[in-house]
Amino acid sequence: MMEQRIESDALGTLAVPREAWHGIHTQRALEHSSLTGDRVHPALVKALVLVKQAAAMVNGKLGLLPPEVAKAVSDACDKVLTEDWRHAFPLHPLQGGAGTSTNMNVNEVLANLAIHLLGGEKGDYGLVHPLRHVNCSQSTNDVYPTAMRIAAIQQIRSLADALARLQESLQAKEAAFDRVLKLGRTQYMDAVPVTLGQEFGAYARAVGRDRWRIYKVEERLREVNIGGTAVGTGLNAPVEYIYRMTDTLQQVTGLGLARSDYLMDTTQNMDVFVEVSGLLKSCAVNLVKVANDLRLLASGPRGGLGEIRLKPLQAGSSIMPGKVNPVQCEMIVQVGYTVMGNDLKITQAASAGVLELNPFGPLIIHSLLESLELLTQGVERFRVHCIEPLEADEARCRKLLDRSYAMATALSGHLGYDRASLLAKEALEQDVSLEALAVSQGLLTADEAAAICNVHEVTKPGIPGRRKP
Amino acid sequence: MMEQRIESDALGTLAVPREAWHGIHTQRALEHSSLTGDRVHPALVKALVLVKQAAAMVNGKLGLLPPEVAKAVSDACDKVLTEDWRHAFPLHPLQGGAGTSTNMNVNEVLANLAIHLLGGEKGDYGLVHPLRHVNCSQSTNDVYPTAMRIAAIQQIRSLADALARLQESLQAKEAAFDRVLKLGRTQYMDAVPVTLGQEFGAYARAVGRDRWRIYKVEERLREVNIGGTAVGTGLNAPVEYIYRMTDTLQQVTGLGLARSDYLMDTTQNMDVFVEVSGLLKSCAVNLVKVANDLRLLASGPRGGLGEIRLKPLQAGSSIMPGKVNPVQCEMIVQVGYTVMGNDLKITQAASAGVLELNPFGPLIIHSLLESLELLTQGVERFRVHCIEPLEADEARCRKLLDRSYAMATALSGHLGYDRASLLAKEALEQDVSLEALAVSQGLLTADEAAAICNVHEVTKPGIPGRRKP
Amino acid sequence: MMEQRIESDALGTLAVPREAWHGIHTQRALEHSSLTGDRVHPALVKALVLVKQAAAMVNGKLGLLPPEVAKAVSDACDKVLTEDWRHAFPLHPLQGGAGTSTNMNVNEVLANLAIHLLGGEKGDYGLVHPLRHVNCSQSTNDVYPTAMRIAAIQQIRSLADALARLQESLQAKEAAFDRVLKLGRTQYMDAVPVTLGQEFGAYARAVGRDRWRIYKVEERLREVNIGGTAVGTGLNAPVEYIYRMTDTLQQVTGLGLARSDYLMDTTQNMDVFVEVSGLLKSCAVNLVKVANDLRLLASGPRGGLGEIRLKPLQAGSSIMPGKVNPVQCEMIVQVGYTVMGNDLKITQAASAGVLELNPFGPLIIHSLLESLELLTQGVERFRVHCIEPLEADEARCRKLLDRSYAMATALSGHLGYDRASLLAKEALEQDVSLEALAVSQGLLTADEAAAICNVHEVTKPGIPGRRKP
Amino acid sequence: MMEQRIESDALGTLAVPREAWHGIHTQRALEHSSLTGDRVHPALVKALVLVKQAAAMVNGKLGLLPPEVAKAVSDACDKVLTEDWRHAFPLHPLQGGAGTSTNMNVNEVLANLAIHLLGGEKGDYGLVHPLRHVNCSQSTNDVYPTAMRIAAIQQIRSLADALARLQESLQAKEAAFDRVLKLGRTQYMDAVPVTLGQEFGAYARAVGRDRWRIYKVEERLREVNIGGTAVGTGLNAPVEYIYRMTDTLQQVTGLGLARSDYLMDTTQNMDVFVEVSGLLKSCAVNLVKVANDLRLLASGPRGGLGEIRLKPLQAGSSIMPGKVNPVQCEMIVQVGYTVMGNDLKITQAASAGVLELNPFGPLIIHSLLESLELLTQGVERFRVHCIEPLEADEARCRKLLDRSYAMATALSGHLGYDRASLLAKEALEQDVSLEALAVSQGLLTADEAAAICNVHEVTKPGIPGRRKP
Repeated sequence: MMEQRIESDALGTLAVPREAWHGIHTQRALEHSSLTGDRVHPALVKALVLVKQAAAMVNGKLGLLPPEVAKAVSDACDKVLTEDWRHAFPLHPLQGGAGTSTNMNVNEVLANLAIHLLGGEKGDYGLVHPLRHVNCSQSTNDVYPTAMRIAAIQQIRSLADALARLQESLQAKEAAFDRVLKLGRTQYMDAVPVTLGQEFGAYARAVGRDRWRIYKVEERLREVNIGGTAVGTGLNAPVEYIYRMTDTLQQVTGLGLARSDYLMDTTQNMDVFVEVSGLLKSCAVNLVKVANDLRLLASGPRGGLGEIRLKPLQAGSSIMPGKVNPVQCEMIVQVGYTVMGNDLKITQAASAGVLELNPFGPLIIHSLLESLELLTQGVERFRVHCIEPLEADEARCRKLLDRSYAMATALSGHLGYDRASLLAKEALEQDVSLEALAVSQGLLTADEAAAICNVHEVTKPGIPGRRKP
Repeated sequence: MMEQRIESDALGTLAVPREAWHGIHTQRALEHSSLTGDRVHPALVKALVLVKQAAAMVNGKLGLLPPEVAKAVSDACDKVLTEDWRHAFPLHPLQGGAGTSTNMNVNEVLANLAIHLLGGEKGDYGLVHPLRHVNCSQSTNDVYPTAMRIAAIQQIRSLADALARLQESLQAKEAAFDRVLKLGRTQYMDAVPVTLGQEFGAYARAVGRDRWRIYKVEERLREVNIGGTAVGTGLNAPVEYIYRMTDTLQQVTGLGLARSDYLMDTTQNMDVFVEVSGLLKSCAVNLVKVANDLRLLASGPRGGLGEIRLKPLQAGSSIMPGKVNPVQCEMIVQVGYTVMGNDLKITQAASAGVLELNPFGPLIIHSLLESLELLTQGVERFRVHCIEPLEADEARCRKLLDRSYAMATALSGHLGYDRASLLAKEALEQDVSLEALAVSQGLLTADEAAAICNVHEVTKPGIPGRRKP
Repeated sequence: MMEQRIESDALGTLAVPREAWHGIHTQRALEHSSLTGDRVHPALVKALVLVKQAAAMVNGKLGLLPPEVAKAVSDACDKVLTEDWRHAFPLHPLQGGAGTSTNMNVNEVLANLAIHLLGGEKGDYGLVHPLRHVNCSQSTNDVYPTAMRIAAIQQIRSLADALARLQESLQAKEAAFDRVLKLGRTQYMDAVPVTLGQEFGAYARAVGRDRWRIYKVEERLREVNIGGTAVGTGLNAPVEYIYRMTDTLQQVTGLGLARSDYLMDTTQNMDVFVEVSGLLKSCAVNLVKVANDLRLLASGPRGGLGEIRLKPLQAGSSIMPGKVNPVQCEMIVQVGYTVMGNDLKITQAASAGVLELNPFGPLIIHSLLESLELLTQGVERFRVHCIEPLEADEARCRKLLDRSYAMATALSGHLGYDRASLLAKEALEQDVSLEALAVSQGLLTADEAAAICNVHEVTKPGIPGRRKP
Repeated sequence: MMEQRIESDALGTLAVPREAWHGIHTQRALEHSSLTGDRVHPALVKALVLVKQAAAMVNGKLGLLPPEVAKAVSDACDKVLTEDWRHAFPLHPLQGGAGTSTNMNVNEVLANLAIHLLGGEKGDYGLVHPLRHVNCSQSTNDVYPTAMRIAAIQQIRSLADALARLQESLQAKEAAFDRVLKLGRTQYMDAVPVTLGQEFGAYARAVGRDRWRIYKVEERLREVNIGGTAVGTGLNAPVEYIYRMTDTLQQVTGLGLARSDYLMDTTQNMDVFVEVSGLLKSCAVNLVKVANDLRLLASGPRGGLGEIRLKPLQAGSSIMPGKVNPVQCEMIVQVGYTVMGNDLKITQAASAGVLELNPFGPLIIHSLLESLELLTQGVERFRVHCIEPLEADEARCRKLLDRSYAMATALSGHLGYDRASLLAKEALEQDVSLEALAVSQGLLTADEAAAICNVHEVTKPGIPGRRKP
C-alpha cells in the first residue's frame, strides 16, 4: 500500500502519496478531472516553469522572497527544464479552472523540489511554500496566459523552420523539373501546357507565404500580461516587480517578450490565439492542396495520371500485392484536417470568455500546441519522405500532353475562339491532333502550326507564334 | 414624400409609412437591424401564419376572440398563404430578439389585413389588435419554435423526395452500367476490377441512406411547444386552448404535430435542429464524395481518366476553346460546403441558449432552411443535368483495366502474396501483363491464368479459378 | 545496443528490434509516421483483434488455415484482449494508408504471439505468417471499417449508460427542487416565475433525448463489410467464409452485427460516422448549455445570481483567497467544444473519400473514439462532482423573484398588455412592486392582486386568478 | 409571350429573351444553376467590371481592340459602375465553373451595352463580341481571382473604418466610466475590484487590434494574377498587356494593386482568403465576447447584475409587458457565428483546389463578402444603437462591490493567503464584511483595514496599504 502524507488547503485536508512531488491542489484536480490518459503538453509546463524562475529571481532581488528560497526555487526550475519530469505533471489538458490546477501543479512540484534541494521533506512547506513563495506576486491569470504565449512562440519557431526547409525542397524540385513539359489541368480537365517545375514553383510560393505569416505572427504573441495578477489591474504585485519581470523573462526565455500596454485586455482576451490558429489553418489548406495534387499526379501506376512517382514507403495493401500508396500525402491531409478541427475548438473557446477572464485557456493552448507540433513534425516527414525522393515520369508527362488538345488556346490566338472551339470538338471526334486537323483543313500551313504549337513557348506569357524576337 | 401614420407602443410613438402593412414593432426593428438585403425566409413566414391561423380559430371557439375578429384574422392568413406577400416582411434574418420582431411583423401584417377585410384603415387596431387579438394566448417563445419546426418539416419532405429521385436515377445507372468492367481504385492507386454499375450502386445506397435518415428525422420535429407561452409554463394560455391547439395545427398544416410532453424543454432547447442539420451534413458528405468521384472519372478528355462523359452544359472557358467543365459537380460540392458551414452556425447558436430561452432561433432556422433549400434544388439539378445524361466510355474503362495489374490480387490467391507482389513489380518494370509473366515464368499454365484472371468473375466474391460450380 | 532481427517484404529488408512483437510493416510505418507521442486508440486495437479472432476461427473451420495455426492465433487474440499489450502497438493515429499500418501491426503482433505460443521465435513466420495466416481472407479495407464499427458501438454503449445516469440525477434534482420558486429568465432578462425543479426537468429531458439518440444510432453501425476484402467485391474471400464471418463476429463480440447488403458502399462510405458524430455534437450542445446555465445560476457568491451552490472541489485561485470556481462546468464545456472540433475533422475526412475507399478512416475513428471517451468520462464526473452535490439557495431564489416584475405577464391577462406594460415601467422607476402599484392605482383590489400574483399558480398553464377550480 | 433572340456558342444555339442584356452563356447557366433567389454579390460584379474597363483601355492602346470598340466597352463599364444594373446579373452565387458564368455574364452585358452605345441591337456581336473584344487577352482564371481581391479590399476598408469608429466609441466609454468602481469577475465568480471604464478599455483594445489586423491584411490581397490567363503562364496575353494592366488597374480602382511575382501560384491558391477570413473570425470572437459581457452586465432589471443599462430599442416580448431585450447584442452574436460558419466554407473551398485552379472561387468570395458586409453593417449598428447610448448604473455597481469579498486578495497581501482564505469563508458564513471581521478578530486595526481596502487603490498595481507615496 502506498504511503501518504496529509496536506491541507482552504477546503480542508487530503492525503497525497508520500512520494508525490505534487501536493493537495494537484491531488484534488486529479480526483475529479482525469478524463483520459492525455496530459498537459510538456511545452506548456516548461513555459510555466520559465515564468516561475523569472518570478523567483525578481522576488528574490526585491526582497519579497528570502535569498535562499529564491535560489532553491530557481534551481528547482533548472532541474525541471533540463530533466524529464513529465511524471510529476499528471493532469488532464481539459481541466476546468482556467489553468489554476496546472499552475498549482507547477507551484507544488517546484516547492517540493526546492524543499528537497534545501534538505527538507516533501510537504514541508514551512521551508518553501507553493503559494507564498513559488507563486509570490503572481496569479494563475497572469502566469498562465504568459506561459501560453511563451510555449506558442517556441513551437512557432520550429514550424517556421520546418516550412523553410519544405519551401527549399520544393524550390529544388522547381529547378529539377524545369524542362519537364506537361499538361496543365483546371477543374480536372485538360487545359494548357505547363512545366512540372512551374507546378512545384507554385507550391513553393504557397509554402513560402505560410512560412512568412507564421514567422511574422510571433510579434503578436510577444505582449504578455505578467504582473497583471488576478484581472490585469496588478493588485498585489509590487510595481517594481511588474517592471522587472519583463526583462527577466526575456533573459530566461531568450524571447523578445514585452509587457502588454493594457494588462486587463491581455488577461481576458484570447483573440491572438485565434489569429495564430487561423494562420495555421491557412498553412493546412496549402498542405492539403499540395498533398491532394501529388496523390492525383502519382495516381496509377497504370490506370491513373502517373506523371510523378512517389517513393514507396511501405507495402500498400494486406491483400493487393505490389500496391504502394501515397501514405505521406494521406498523413499530411489528416494533419491538415486536425489543424482545422483544432481551429474550431480554439475559436469557440476564445469566444467564450466572460468579463475579466476566459476560463478556457487550457483547451486553447492544448489545441494550439497540438496543431503546431503536428504541423512541424508532419511537414518535416512530408518533406523527407515524400517531396525529396519524388521523381518525375517525364515520358508519361509528355505523352499525355501530346495526346491532349492543350494547343487549342494557342491556336485560338490565330483562328479565333469559335473556330478553335469547333476544331477541338472535331479533333476529339476524329481522334487526331489539333495541329494536323488545322493544317488538313487549310487553316494554317505546317510551318505556322509548328510555330504556334511550340510547347516550350506556350508555357510562357504571350501569343505563341507572334512573339517578338 | 411618403405619407405616414403614427403608431405607439410601450417605448413611445413612431411614424410608419401610411401604406405599410406592418406596424411600429416592425418599423423599430427595421431601423436598427437592417444589415443587408437578405430577408427572413418565406417558408418561416408561412409557418408563422399557419400558427396564427390555428390560434385565431381556437381563440374564436373558446370565446377569447370575438367571432368576426377570429374570422377576419383567419381570412387574412389565407390570403398571405396563397398570395405573394413577401414585400410585407422586410426584416433581416439575423435579427436580435429571439424572433420577436418577425412574430410582431406577422401579427401586424395580419392585423392590418384583417382590419382591411373588415373595412377599416391600416393602423386602426381598435378593430383588430396585433397583440391582443392576433397574438392572443401566445408568446413569441412558443409561436416561433413551433413555426421553426413546421417550416423545417415542410422543407425536409421536399428534400426527401428529391433524394428519392436521385437514388432512383443512380440505380438506373447501376443497372445500365452493370456490364461495364473497369479498374477499381483505392487511395488513387489501381486496385482490383469492379463494374461501373457497382460504383453507381454504392452511390445509390449512400443516397438512399440519406433519404431514409431525413425521412425519419421528421419525427423529432413533430413535438411542438405551442401553448407554453413565455417560458414553457403556459402562463396566460388557457388550458383548453393548449389542448385544442395541437389538433387545430395538425388540421391547418396537414402535419402530424404533437404537443411536447415538457414544454419548457422544447421552448429552450434547440438540439433537435442540430440533429437535423447533422443529418444534412451527412448527406452533404455523400454528395461531395459522389461529385468528386465523377469529376475524377470524367477527367480528360485526353489527359485524365475519361471513364465517363458528363453532358456539356456550357462552354467551359472564356479562353480555352472546346473545354467543358463538370459544373454541376462543382455546384453540388459548393452546396455541400455551405451545408457544413451552416451546420457550424446552427451548432454554435444552439449551444448558446441561456436558461429559459435560446435567443438565436433566427440564425438557426434561417441557416437550416437555406441548407434544406440548397440541397433540395441542388440535388434536383445535379440529378437532371449531371446524373441522368451521364454516359460511360466503355472502351476506355476496359482499356485502363487491361493495362493495369488489377489481377495481382486474384493471382495472389494462387501464388501467395509475396510471389504475386514480386510478379507485379517485375511486370511493371518490364511493361508486360501479369498473366503473361506468370505463364512465361512457369508459375501457371495459360488455362489456369485465363481462369483466374476472368474479369467478370473477379468483381464477385470468392477466389477466382477456385469457385465451385 | 538493441539486438535486431532482419525481416523482409515487397520493398526489401529492414532491421526490427529482436524483442519487438511487431514486424517489418509496423517498423516501416514507425520510421516515417511518428508525429507525436499519441497512439492508436486501444479500443480500436481490441476491435481489430476481435475481427482477427473471428477470422481465425472461420478460416480454421473452412480448412483455409491449419487447425493448430488457427488455434494459436485465436489464443494470441485472447491474450491481447485480456492483458495490457499497449506497448506492442506504437503507431501514431494519423497514419496514412487507410489503416493498413495498424492492421499489419495487429497481424504481426498476433503472428509473433502465436509463434511464441507454438514455441517459436519472433519473426519465424514459417510457423504463423502475418498475412498468409492472420490476415487470411481479409483486406485492411474490410477489416478496418468493421473494427471501426465494433469499437464505436462498444464506446457508444458506455456513453448511453453514463447519460442515463446523468438523466436520473437531473430528475432527482427536478423532484428535490420542485417547490423552489424562482425567477425565470429569457435573453438574460427577468421573465416569469418558474421552479428550480422545472429547470432541472428541462435539462433532464434534453439529456434523455441525447441518451435515446445515441442508443438508437447503434443500429446504423451494426452493418459491417467484413468479407468485402479490397473494394467490397469480396475478391479472394471464399463465399462460405463471408457468410460465416458475421455469425462468428457476433459470437466473439457479443454485438448484433449484420452483414451489409452492399459491401462496396460500406467499404467506401463513412457517412455513418458523420451521423454518429453529429449526434455526439447534439449531446455536446446540450451539455454546454446546461453547464453554462449552472455557471450563471451559481455566480457570486455575492455579486452574482447565487441561486444554486456548487460543491467546492478545489481552491479556485492562487491569489484570491476563498474563491471557488465552477471547474466541472468548465471541464464539460471544453469537452463539448472538443466534440464539436472532432466533428469537423470527421466531416472533412468523411467527405474526402475517393472512388472505392476513404483513406482517412484512421482520423475518423480516432476522433470519434476520443469524443466518445471524453463525453463518457466527462458526463460521469460532471454528474458525480457537479450535479449530485449541487444545492439550491431557496431564500435567494425567492428574494430575486419577489424583487422582480415577473408578475407583469400574469397581470396583463387582466389589465391588457399595454396597461401592464406601463405599470411595469412605472414600478421600475418608483422601485415598488407591481401588485402594490396596481392596487394603489385602483386597477385591482388587494384580493384580486393576491389571486393573480400567486406565484405557485403562475408556474402552471392558464390565466392566473381566472383558473377554474 | 416574351420575344427571343437566338444566340450560339460551341455547344449549339439557344433562345435568349430579346430584351436581356445577357447572352447565351449566362442563359445556359441560368437554366441549370438557379438554386435559390440569391444572386452574385454586386461588389464582385463591380470589381469584374473594373477589370474589364482596365483591359479595354490596355487592349485599345496596344491595338488589340479597335479604338471605338475599346471606348464603347469602357463607356459601358462606366454605366454599370454608376447605375443600378443588378437586374442584368441574375446568376446564383454557388455556380460551378470557377466563375466562368459570372465572367461571361459581365462580358455579355458589357458587349450588349457597348453595342447599344454604338447604335446596334442586342446580340449583334459583330460590333462588340463578349469574348473576342470584352474578354480580349483575358481568362476567367485571371480575371476572377483579380476581381475577388479588388472586391475584398474595398469591403475591408469599410470594415476597418467601422471598427475604428467602434473603438473610439468604446474609448469614450472608457473615459466616461473611469471612476465607476465595480466588482471584477472571473469564471462568473466575484474577484477583485475594477472600474467599468477599465472594462471598456479592454474592449477598446481588442477592437483596436481587430482594426489593425484588418487594415494590414489588405497588403496580402494586393497581389493580383491578371495577365496570367488560363493557368498563370500568361498564354495568349501579350507581354506588353501584362505589364500595362497593373498600372491601369491601379488607376481605375484607386487601389495599390501589384502584379503577383508568380502568377501560377496566385491563380491556383486561395490561402490568402483563408487568412483574411481567419482575421474576420478573430474579430467575430471579440465582438461575441463583448456582446455577451454586455448582456450579462445589463441582465435584470431586478433579478440580474444590472450594472449597465442598454437603450430600449423595441418592446421585448409579445407577452411579457415591459420587457426589453439586448437585441443589438444578440444581433452581433449572430453576425459573429455567421462569420465563423463562413470561415469554414472558405477553408473547405480553399483546400479543395486541384492542380492549376481552384474551382470554388465563387463560394469563397461570396462567403467572404457576406462576412465583410455583415460585420461592417453589424458593427455600425452595434455602435450606434448599443454602445453609444449605453449607461452605467453606478449605484448598483458600487452596491454589488461593497457586498462582495473582493477585498480578500488585498488582505492576503498582509495576512497571507491561508488566513485571508479562512477569513473569506467565515465572513460568507456570518454575512459580515471582511474588513469588519478582520478588525473584530484583532488581525488589523481599523485604520489598517481602511488603508488596505481602499477600493480606488485596489484597481491599480501594487500591494494596497503598502504603496510608497
